[in-house]
Amino acid sequence: MLVRTLSALECTKLLTANRIGRLACAKDRQPYVVPFYYAHADNHLYAFSMPGKKIEWMRANPLVSVQVDEHGQGRGWRSVVADGRYEELPDRIGHKLERDHAWSVLSKHTDWWEPGALKPVLPPVSDSAPHVFFRILIEQVSGREASE
Amino acid sequence: MLVRTLSALECTKLLTANRIGRLACAKDRQPYVVPFYYAHADNHLYAFSMPGKKIEWMRANPLVSVQVDEHGQGRGWRSVVADGRYEELPDRIGHKLERDHAWSVLSKHTDWWEPGALKPVLPPVSDSAPHVFFRILIEQVSGREASE
Repeated sequence: MLVRTLSALECTKLLTANRIGRLACAKDRQPYVVPFYYAHADNHLYAFSMPGKKIEWMRANPLVSVQVDEHGQGRGWRSVVADGRYEELPDRIGHKLERDHAWSVLSKHTDWWEPGALKPVLPPVSDSAPHVFFRILIEQVSGREASE
Repeated sequence: MLVRTLSALECTKLLTANRIGRLACAKDRQPYVVPFYYAHADNHLYAFSMPGKKIEWMRANPLVSVQVDEHGQGRGWRSVVADGRYEELPDRIGHKLERDHAWSVLSKHTDWWEPGALKPVLPPVSDSAPHVFFRILIEQVSGREASE
């Protein structure tokens, strides 16, 4: 296997081309990692979530790490790790454009929505549904590619 | 989608049946998540790694979180999160049985070895190769299943 480092542009393209990542947050010294669906735009990863452990932890400590990979031909693969910062985006302080964009991108995937929730037809708003809309500001990105 | 909580036994079976997970560690308040190959046995996840950032971080703070998932029929999936503790297993203090077991399980997969390293024919020993052999003691496990 040949392994090389991805450029920042290649990392960004991989983040844009994919929808499923693994999101790690940390409380005190304990990390916690879960899969999540996201949409990449303008150096941010946008996502919706039901309230729960990861939201509580990211509210307490906004530092996160996101890992995304894709498989190439044969045994080849690419993996990107993005370190970033959690930012919650309540409806009432704007961000309608970002929310609609993320909703538009994510709702194209039949299986994107959080487990346990019926898929809403319209973007959830904070006054009517418990869903949390947030984004990860990407502060540092790195990636590797392995090819045969 | 119907979602239910997995029993501890179901979580263990999923960990045993899979080889690829995402391993999150943390330094100070910053988490870091990467893919890794593992073999599950006796409430531990065994793995080899080249030295690097994740090894340094886990040496400094052994608290980790591992996420593993598998896809079922249609849109169905299962995901397990295991919180645990990093334990390094140098050759010189024993653990030959565990090392040989992990090597035996992992070497069956053509693509399991760390990128950038030639796949060794025999298990690496700490005196001759820089590979780090470690295990994650599973302290807490939880999982969910979504089915149509």
